[in-house]
Amino acid sequence: MVKLTEEMKNDFAKMKIFPFATASKSGEPNVIPIGMCKLQEDGETIWITDNYFLKTRKNLDENPRGALYVWGPDIEGCYQIKGDIEIKTEGEDYEKMYKEVKAKSDKFPAKALVVMKITEVYECKAFAEPGKRLL
Amino acid sequence: MVKLTEEMKNDFAKMKIFPFATASKSGEPNVIPIGMCKLQEDGETIWITDNYFLKTRKNLDENPRGALYVWGPDIEGCYQIKGDIEIKTEGEDYEKMYKEVKAKSDKFPAKALVVMKITEVYECKAFAEPGKRLL
Repeated sequence: MVKLTEEMKNDFAKMKIFPFATASKSGEPNVIPIGMCKLQEDGETIWITDNYFLKTRKNLDENPRGALYVWGPDIEGCYQIKGDIEIKTEGEDYEKMYKEVKAKSDKFPAKALVVMKITEVYECKAFAEPGKRLL
Repeated sequence: MVKLTEEMKNDFAKMKIFPFATASKSGEPNVIPIGMCKLQEDGETIWITDNYFLKTRKNLDENPRGALYVWGPDIEGCYQIKGDIEIKTEGEDYEKMYKEVKAKSDKFPAKALVVMKITEVYECKAFAEPGKRLL
């Protein structure tokens, strides 16, 4: 696993919406905006709430890999993060996420907890060395 | 092919940065922010400039499919667009793009023109019917 640096953690915390990409087993790419995406204290685990995933969930069930990037207004760096995915629909972690989401609003279904363990981080800033592996 | 509606075209025109997803043939997802991404007048063709693509280009060479979404501040709808990709590094279309990009700044390499023919459009707004095919 790979831990984000302090600089990357700060950028991650400022993000409101992340583009989250998955692919089917046969290689059909998909990308959606996600709001509930939280870096855990270990700096190497991301919790994503599945409220409305359809193609994304199907992809993750058959091909448990995800990619997202950290970048936007007021964000210092531009990092692409890839990781291995585990889907949880019960257990302690799922219950914890479920309670937090329901506390925000009962309208969110919080169907599943998508746990992403970071495996790689890449540069994605133009004029730097985009595509270069950083971690 | 699929033509965007007038409403979708208006939203598309307001976007500054698009999240652009691809996948390797073996299904490894990738997503990057792209700035030079322009809907053509036919409403069904998107021109993307490859300035710094690395994994994205490798993916497109072996698996010519792409996905992006239209959404953000001041954007009315939320649409996910998928399409078939053709890479052009010479010819009339490539030359046209190359000149336009170089006119902005000589620092952009404009390595290739990524032509995406839209094949599907999906809803991606929360509380609507996210994942539903619209076109």
